[in-house]
Amino acid sequence: MASAEPESSQTPPPAGENDSELANLSKKQAKKEAQKAERLRKQQEAATAAAAAAAASAEADPFSGNYGDVPTEEIQSKAVSGRQWTEIGSLDAERAERMVLIRGAAQAIRPVSKKMAFLVVRQYVSTVQCVLVVNKEWVSPQMVKFATGLSKESIVDVEGVVSIPKDPIKGTTQQVEVQVRKLYCINRAMPNLPINIEDAARSEMEFEKAEQTGEQLVRVGQDTRLNYRVLDLRTPANQATFRIQCHVEDIFRRFLLSEGFVGIHTPKLVPGSSEGGAAVFKLDYKGQPACLAQSPQLYKQMAICGGFGCVFEVGSVFRAEDSYTHRHLCEFVGLDVEMEIKEHYFEVCDVVDRLFVAMFDYLNETCKKELDSINRQYPFEPLKYLRNTLRLTFLEGVEMLKEAGTEVDPFGDLNTEAEKTLGRLVREKYDTDFYILHRYPLAVRPFYTMPCYDDPTYSNSFDVFIRGEEIISGAQRVHLPELLTKRAEACGIDVKTISTYIDSFRYGAPPHGGFGVGLERVVMLFCALNNIRKTSLFPRDPQRLVP
Amino acid sequence: MASAEPESSQTPPPAGENDSELANLSKKQAKKEAQKAERLRKQQEAATAAAAAAAASAEADPFSGNYGDVPTEEIQSKAVSGRQWTEIGSLDAERAERMVLIRGAAQAIRPVSKKMAFLVVRQYVSTVQCVLVVNKEWVSPQMVKFATGLSKESIVDVEGVVSIPKDPIKGTTQQVEVQVRKLYCINRAMPNLPINIEDAARSEMEFEKAEQTGEQLVRVGQDTRLNYRVLDLRTPANQATFRIQCHVEDIFRRFLLSEGFVGIHTPKLVPGSSEGGAAVFKLDYKGQPACLAQSPQLYKQMAICGGFGCVFEVGSVFRAEDSYTHRHLCEFVGLDVEMEIKEHYFEVCDVVDRLFVAMFDYLNETCKKELDSINRQYPFEPLKYLRNTLRLTFLEGVEMLKEAGTEVDPFGDLNTEAEKTLGRLVREKYDTDFYILHRYPLAVRPFYTMPCYDDPTYSNSFDVFIRGEEIISGAQRVHLPELLTKRAEACGIDVKTISTYIDSFRYGAPPHGGFGVGLERVVMLFCALNNIRKTSLFPRDPQRLVP
Repeated sequence: MASAEPESSQTPPPAGENDSELANLSKKQAKKEAQKAERLRKQQEAATAAAAAAAASAEADPFSGNYGDVPTEEIQSKAVSGRQWTEIGSLDAERAERMVLIRGAAQAIRPVSKKMAFLVVRQYVSTVQCVLVVNKEWVSPQMVKFATGLSKESIVDVEGVVSIPKDPIKGTTQQVEVQVRKLYCINRAMPNLPINIEDAARSEMEFEKAEQTGEQLVRVGQDTRLNYRVLDLRTPANQATFRIQCHVEDIFRRFLLSEGFVGIHTPKLVPGSSEGGAAVFKLDYKGQPACLAQSPQLYKQMAICGGFGCVFEVGSVFRAEDSYTHRHLCEFVGLDVEMEIKEHYFEVCDVVDRLFVAMFDYLNETCKKELDSINRQYPFEPLKYLRNTLRLTFLEGVEMLKEAGTEVDPFGDLNTEAEKTLGRLVREKYDTDFYILHRYPLAVRPFYTMPCYDDPTYSNSFDVFIRGEEIISGAQRVHLPELLTKRAEACGIDVKTISTYIDSFRYGAPPHGGFGVGLERVVMLFCALNNIRKTSLFPRDPQRLVP
Repeated sequence: MASAEPESSQTPPPAGENDSELANLSKKQAKKEAQKAERLRKQQEAATAAAAAAAASAEADPFSGNYGDVPTEEIQSKAVSGRQWTEIGSLDAERAERMVLIRGAAQAIRPVSKKMAFLVVRQYVSTVQCVLVVNKEWVSPQMVKFATGLSKESIVDVEGVVSIPKDPIKGTTQQVEVQVRKLYCINRAMPNLPINIEDAARSEMEFEKAEQTGEQLVRVGQDTRLNYRVLDLRTPANQATFRIQCHVEDIFRRFLLSEGFVGIHTPKLVPGSSEGGAAVFKLDYKGQPACLAQSPQLYKQMAICGGFGCVFEVGSVFRAEDSYTHRHLCEFVGLDVEMEIKEHYFEVCDVVDRLFVAMFDYLNETCKKELDSINRQYPFEPLKYLRNTLRLTFLEGVEMLKEAGTEVDPFGDLNTEAEKTLGRLVREKYDTDFYILHRYPLAVRPFYTMPCYDDPTYSNSFDVFIRGEEIISGAQRVHLPELLTKRAEACGIDVKTISTYIDSFRYGAPPHGGFGVGLERVVMLFCALNNIRKTSLFPRDPQRLVP
């Protein structure tokens, strides 16, 4: 066995001993220089030690074949060995006494003695404790040393026998252990990670406890998390969040497909400035002015004119707005629906109702494990929702606010504060966090919104709220080209720039309506997360374009 | 009954009768002026006639309530009547003698006499023949006149009784008729459509037949189709194409979800110029230089570093290349996969193999109706594919080409012609249109491609071909930051611009690989369509940004 801190002939002289050079340096410079030299010395020491250890091991250790770093060529598609890897998440009592081979990240490495060490290996959301004990058949002291010398988050292959410990294991998802026989490092992580997974995974409660005991814990800020997103994503809460996001999209799609909707893709590169609305990202398209679509609105309506009956789209949406809030992104994933209606925009509300109740049911029933993971770091109350979603008119909402002492303009929009308040009032009165507010003032809706038949100052439109925040906007659309032209002009839009869109309604256009919702917002509000950046894999806001 | 061409007191004097004005106009101008006045006169006449007819009908026709244009307010969400509409596609013999209400587009209107007319109504991909016969209970001659006066593609509500005709009906999908009792026009199409659906739906065979008989048929060119895409989309072939596209995406997703893959969304707005490869669309992101992602490559790899194990993405991909071919678009839908591999890039090929065989099987078994619709307009041979997809090395391909007299550089890429030839040779020898060519020269692959363990001039990469055209590119990736840096530099990429990406591999990175495929190309090549513009809803190429 090689010494832990070998003497090395290559160690450079300690910094600062060379007076002639030092004389020319300021104290600060000297310190820097010294630190640099120290780092270099340590690195060289470590390298020498590793080389010496490897050489010594190979010579002296009869079990040297049972561990080590896998040479590069072995992970360059050299061969298909036929070996089977077991998923860590499937390790349970049924596999007791059986031999398994697993691959994962070395999340925690705990040396107990020179003869024993624990290694917690993580794969996706699952973790298992691996035990190394020196024995006469497989594990040498050098192998224990190799294990304890691994840097955290290194990728390892572990071969061993599944065993059931006497006491329940805290801190791993799997309630069995692996008695290690072989341990190979596939890829080494750098020794000092910019953030530690356990720090990034702490709940507010842990910080509160630590404060009481005087313990110092590292708090990883939201920005730091995003700067090192690939590490941050490895926490149980983040693994769960993006799996839930995947489920939300999947339920959205499956529900609509089962009802005969057709999934479509509309262009994101559009001429001029789409919808004439909020700020857009402009670009040059082969010499033509173009911009990124703020929504698939005009195109999904054109798909209805194209005869598809009812369509949906899951696609990127771009907003160049300077919104520095917890709920705005410059790029997000839009879940969009457009459908023929026979008589009434309530047909669209019916789809919203059934789709989201089905979605919430599914998440609660099927994603318990993921919701628990989020809850452990970011505790939240389960969403309250009714079997039939509550529908209030805008004026009923205004009235409720008025009764509670909040005056709002019955022809204006609700601001974020009023929405929050109304959400609270609705929850108190109707016991739901999810409801539809419809018949909005026409003036606060886009030009393509159908006015009410009985009062053109109101419109056949609706918003949907979760926990007091707007999440869905929908409406019946104007399918009459003359009225559409009039409304566009009234909204200050240059009709020439949307002539193809307006013309689409001249060839026989069915009455229709639809809605749009942001995928990231659904996940954020269902799980009551406080920041939409937590539900976007690599978020884009006015200040962030990386990573 | 009102006269068809009533005398009107409001008719203006024929143009050209005002001599004093005419004297000052050139002949050409005079003609223009005359045409304009004539148009105006006709429009006014028609309006007057319609008004008179409506008034007369209401007075004289006891059945006037059974037909007519639905007033605007009735289609502005006035009420929920509780009426049930039946889907045209579900009309069959089982509904005989039953009353139904249907809504669709008036695809064809054929007057037989003043007492009888046929109306073919279309909904999505289904059509049914509706029969109007004057009778004493429901249908007046005025109602038949109203029906025959409808413009093609107008949206109508038809109420009537389902009947079974003696002879099979040619030209409609449904083999029953509807004996009309009520007929309302929901939305009128303009009388002269820019393209007719039947013209847009013709097959090459119809043109050939017509040529023999001397019949003149209108041929709708690809550009005209795209200019009036909402009409073009109504053809059976197009309805089928985009339903198949939806299925392809759905099978892709369902297959991968069933194997534990996580669906993700990566940003399309990226800093600098992504991958340092081909031309990108540049834009200004809040003062920072940015561009549109050419692929989710770097981000899907970072998701693997984020611990998701295996991921897929369906999302927009942007290429600013000046490629004027039948198979290139400036914007398309990328189907992307990235996954940890244990030993070999064959693990990625295995996924390609199983996924696409499952996809082709599904399309052939479940989408017969849609494939028939495409086949009728664009006949094609079914795709030949093996249960286990053929894998040839690049050098084996080069050898096959050489034997057939085509010399290609064993260290270069195959050009389109060589790919076509090889496709033919493979088909002859192995009886398949679908195969994998792997171990490409390193020099022709992107910097992030893993070199072969035994020969660094070759790489752990593959392309997949359908009908002699490349459709999928995939590879094992370099997960070693030092090698990745070296490869990026060798490919002339400024490593500073991708430092976050490279750093992602310093925190413990598993070996991994993946592939990407264009959704539009899959549909195009499976159905042997000759132009990718046929499989993009609103295609974008270097010359087309509208509609």
